[in-house]
Amino acid sequence: MTRIGFLGPHATFTEQALRSLPASDGAELVPLAGSPAVLAAVRDGSVDAGCVPIENSVEGAVPPVLDGLVDDPPLMIVAEALVAVRFVLLARRGTSRGDVGSVASHGHGIAQTRGWLADHLPDAEVRVSSSTAEAAAQAARGEVDAAVSSPLAAEQHGLDVLADDIADNPGAITRFVLLTRPGPPPAPSGRDRTTLAATTLNRPGTLLGLLTELALRGIDLTRIESRPIKDRHAEYWFHLDCSGHVAEPAMGEALAALHRRCDRVRFLGSFPRAGDVAGPAGGAARDAAGSPAVPLGPASPEEFSAAQRWLDGLRDGTHT
Amino acid sequence: MTRIGFLGPHATFTEQALRSLPASDGAELVPLAGSPAVLAAVRDGSVDAGCVPIENSVEGAVPPVLDGLVDDPPLMIVAEALVAVRFVLLARRGTSRGDVGSVASHGHGIAQTRGWLADHLPDAEVRVSSSTAEAAAQAARGEVDAAVSSPLAAEQHGLDVLADDIADNPGAITRFVLLTRPGPPPAPSGRDRTTLAATTLNRPGTLLGLLTELALRGIDLTRIESRPIKDRHAEYWFHLDCSGHVAEPAMGEALAALHRRCDRVRFLGSFPRAGDVAGPAGGAARDAAGSPAVPLGPASPEEFSAAQRWLDGLRDGTHT
Amino acid sequence: MTRIGFLGPHATFTEQALRSLPASDGAELVPLAGSPAVLAAVRDGSVDAGCVPIENSVEGAVPPVLDGLVDDPPLMIVAEALVAVRFVLLARRGTSRGDVGSVASHGHGIAQTRGWLADHLPDAEVRVSSSTAEAAAQAARGEVDAAVSSPLAAEQHGLDVLADDIADNPGAITRFVLLTRPGPPPAPSGRDRTTLAATTLNRPGTLLGLLTELALRGIDLTRIESRPIKDRHAEYWFHLDCSGHVAEPAMGEALAALHRRCDRVRFLGSFPRAGDVAGPAGGAARDAAGSPAVPLGPASPEEFSAAQRWLDGLRDGTHT
Amino acid sequence: MTRIGFLGPHATFTEQALRSLPASDGAELVPLAGSPAVLAAVRDGSVDAGCVPIENSVEGAVPPVLDGLVDDPPLMIVAEALVAVRFVLLARRGTSRGDVGSVASHGHGIAQTRGWLADHLPDAEVRVSSSTAEAAAQAARGEVDAAVSSPLAAEQHGLDVLADDIADNPGAITRFVLLTRPGPPPAPSGRDRTTLAATTLNRPGTLLGLLTELALRGIDLTRIESRPIKDRHAEYWFHLDCSGHVAEPAMGEALAALHRRCDRVRFLGSFPRAGDVAGPAGGAARDAAGSPAVPLGPASPEEFSAAQRWLDGLRDGTHT
Repeated sequence: MTRIGFLGPHATFTEQALRSLPASDGAELVPLAGSPAVLAAVRDGSVDAGCVPIENSVEGAVPPVLDGLVDDPPLMIVAEALVAVRFVLLARRGTSRGDVGSVASHGHGIAQTRGWLADHLPDAEVRVSSSTAEAAAQAARGEVDAAVSSPLAAEQHGLDVLADDIADNPGAITRFVLLTRPGPPPAPSGRDRTTLAATTLNRPGTLLGLLTELALRGIDLTRIESRPIKDRHAEYWFHLDCSGHVAEPAMGEALAALHRRCDRVRFLGSFPRAGDVAGPAGGAARDAAGSPAVPLGPASPEEFSAAQRWLDGLRDGTHT
Repeated sequence: MTRIGFLGPHATFTEQALRSLPASDGAELVPLAGSPAVLAAVRDGSVDAGCVPIENSVEGAVPPVLDGLVDDPPLMIVAEALVAVRFVLLARRGTSRGDVGSVASHGHGIAQTRGWLADHLPDAEVRVSSSTAEAAAQAARGEVDAAVSSPLAAEQHGLDVLADDIADNPGAITRFVLLTRPGPPPAPSGRDRTTLAATTLNRPGTLLGLLTELALRGIDLTRIESRPIKDRHAEYWFHLDCSGHVAEPAMGEALAALHRRCDRVRFLGSFPRAGDVAGPAGGAARDAAGSPAVPLGPASPEEFSAAQRWLDGLRDGTHT
Repeated sequence: MTRIGFLGPHATFTEQALRSLPASDGAELVPLAGSPAVLAAVRDGSVDAGCVPIENSVEGAVPPVLDGLVDDPPLMIVAEALVAVRFVLLARRGTSRGDVGSVASHGHGIAQTRGWLADHLPDAEVRVSSSTAEAAAQAARGEVDAAVSSPLAAEQHGLDVLADDIADNPGAITRFVLLTRPGPPPAPSGRDRTTLAATTLNRPGTLLGLLTELALRGIDLTRIESRPIKDRHAEYWFHLDCSGHVAEPAMGEALAALHRRCDRVRFLGSFPRAGDVAGPAGGAARDAAGSPAVPLGPASPEEFSAAQRWLDGLRDGTHT
Repeated sequence: MTRIGFLGPHATFTEQALRSLPASDGAELVPLAGSPAVLAAVRDGSVDAGCVPIENSVEGAVPPVLDGLVDDPPLMIVAEALVAVRFVLLARRGTSRGDVGSVASHGHGIAQTRGWLADHLPDAEVRVSSSTAEAAAQAARGEVDAAVSSPLAAEQHGLDVLADDIADNPGAITRFVLLTRPGPPPAPSGRDRTTLAATTLNRPGTLLGLLTELALRGIDLTRIESRPIKDRHAEYWFHLDCSGHVAEPAMGEALAALHRRCDRVRFLGSFPRAGDVAGPAGGAARDAAGSPAVPLGPASPEEFSAAQRWLDGLRDGTHT
């Protein structure tokens, strides 16, 4: 049976995301403590795949995941899922807000409710947990007075909801990815995302060159992040999300061009773009991807094939 | 007397950075709880300037500072300082590592010592403080067993150093900025940085257009970050650091071009680039900026003036 | 009284073009032998302006005019006119086609009727005249049996039309320009052309850089020609026609950018684009310019002004 | 035996160029009247190849050759040769300059000696011949008093040289090309030129896009000409000479990209660049090509192969 690790314990937003993916059907889902542990378990083969958060619509990228993705040995993204995050304040039955002297959550839960906590629990001590579900477990065990966590965790641990929907920016969506060791990417779906990371020599214009290679081939860049390279001050890994699939000629040619141009380039996967947000109760589907289908201009597979046939004819002299 | 707020309490790395800046001479330094509080105090006039961390060579950007900078009303960076960050584990006299059941630090202190804590204090509860100095104060008051903080805080609170230099990536450098309300920027020093943020309409190629405007005028881009725009899914503020000063013609023309091209553009200041790392003991100065002076190509002020004089002559018909 | 030289003698297509320009009203029109003579007369002040052909829709650029324009001292184009060229075969009364052993025309008349002459007068000797009108005069004087010339010349010299509309590509349009010594350009009309010439150092990518400077500022390039630089093998003057006027900020900024980037750049004038074809009988006006109004994108004067005001505010600290 | 047509009659500069090419060894050289006749003879198979002038360092492109190259059916350039052109004034024995009332030459001979003729034979009637050699033949037959032709023609027709080296710009070099019907191009020599022609839709920025496709792949553009498209006013064929060979990956990828991007693109051949000027007496060889070897940047065949192997591995999952 397939084993899939995820940022545990049970009842995390990550588990919610994972369960929305077809790959989880019939698989053994293994909760692990922290995203780095999930990446490590995929790398060492103790699980077949792993699910971690990569980006939040309010907080931005998840730095340890981005940094972990470019470590060795390589990993590959094979699927993604979107989850609408809803934060609630949980406590054991009978606790009132006035009793809360300490509150725990995952770093992201703390960051996204910072304003609410400052307004409503200004004197509470804030503790970092390895996940929002673990914070709920801590509250259930009495190690902390309250937890910023999910409705699912309230249910699972039999906790009361002291306050609902307490995110400073409601409507936040988190994107999760399913990782495996490298192998053939999933077949193109016609609506794919390719994720990659690249470093450039620290010279003027190199990022521009990189983006031009993409744009010229009709490839849309949907996200760019820079992450400092640990021991090289003022140098960065650029993390890029693009429209398209490595099996398509436009993307293939662009990736080959980046391979020639960049100091290092790491292919992180081609996989179908998620279009439905997995909500707590199955949720009303909506297209969260936002951007319209990209006009690929001169980069359609048909145009690439026609151009290649023409070129082949030039080279062997059979036609012009 | 000038009042300058900083991410307090006393003995933070931010205070260290602030004291290395000439602007702190003779000023009243006002410790404030958290970067958002510093930004707010500058905005409401309760201080004349504020000092906050903006980027760390290991952890990357400081998201709440980036997000706070693009809020209203506008703020302006007028100086920057680099500090080599050294984390130590502090506790009250007599505490041994085996006694440590809880440890506090600022979120960045926790993030940068994550590996060390997992290896050496796997069972300790980790609490978030508003600053590393506040974590040391909590340890001194006995509210927590230990703190991840700075050597300066050890001294100030009379705490023992249980472990020195515990960062997962030693040699980290943090960049701090001094903020004021908008006004004339500092005079060009010949070695300046201009910081800005921009949003583009969510269309293919817009980021490329933005970078081309800079590159064509010989302006080097030294850093780019994307931060999600709170309530607009899949749209981003791009934060850019560039070589040059708004008073120079190349930068002026580029900024005007971005103003025409971008949905929104926020000028965040032109100021001398920091080249010396402020160490705990005054430290041996070294050039931490790394990248060589940028060859400005056809963008020197002299070339711009000559071209403008030529253009003026064309327009009034006095010469060609 | 203003004196305007033109490629003579009387009855040339050039005179037709000149008479369609308002500048010719009340001026003394001075026929001169050859385009180089017209350019020289403008330069030495013996005429106030001069009219010469610059481009033909069938034959392309007129090389001696392009080359003459970049000579010293500088000249400036202040107006243009389009003429639909119609070639006829003329001879003295009583001549039949079988009698024609020699035929004269200007080089362009010969080039544009090459096929017709080869088919219908294969054995006739072809002679080069300084203009089509001069060829008609030669036929009238009996120095040659027939001339390829204009209907106007037939009338003027009392010659018979042996064959009408004999151009190999009927419908050819020739563009003529009115030149003066440098001075303030005509006021912007809202539908202007700017003509310039530039040389670049012989390095890869320099032409690309030049075109990018234009495109980035929303300036449309409507024509590009390369002419070898006389004594520098494999180096070229690039002759460019662009949409817009030097008085407009987008064009001004682009010209200044070319001045910085190019080895040499020669401004050859900003003037209203001709939209009506001057036909022999006044002609039905039609828009011969062809291309639709250019979407100027971020380059409208209003956008430029707004951006400049914003920049001024940044620099003096009065606003952001 | 191979038959090669050339712009005749015997003793033209074209014959000189053709004889300098290895392909002429043992071939039957067939003089034809005019470049269009040479192109037509190659197309209809009455000769196996044809030699015509394409560009002159003083006069620029040879328009009828450029225009003829993009006609149908397609032709292909397989070799090129450079000839240093030297014009002399020839006449039958006993003729003095004062006797010259008429002078004949090819259009290019007339154009390149225009100044000299105006100065020294202002009253002579100038006649157009189909070649400079034919002009010499006319002088020998007494049909014209003198000819602007080549030293070779003087010898061949037993004519006197009335004036030597009469070109207005001495040192002119003409480039000639050898054409065949389409077939496999000559093998890469490591120092090749690729010639092509393209039309773009009449929209802003299309030429820029075309040049960017070349530049991004490290391909140097050494010449660009625009020729009006006969019956489409204000639209052009762009004629381009580039460094490199269609068999090389960088050029192959660039050609395929132009095929996708352009309205029409015509491959006109890949062939070794000529480096030696064929002078009348065999001549001292010199590198007339001028420009230094192009730094191909990220476009070497090795870099392309490495990138392709990497891409293949990504696609089949065998490596990253």
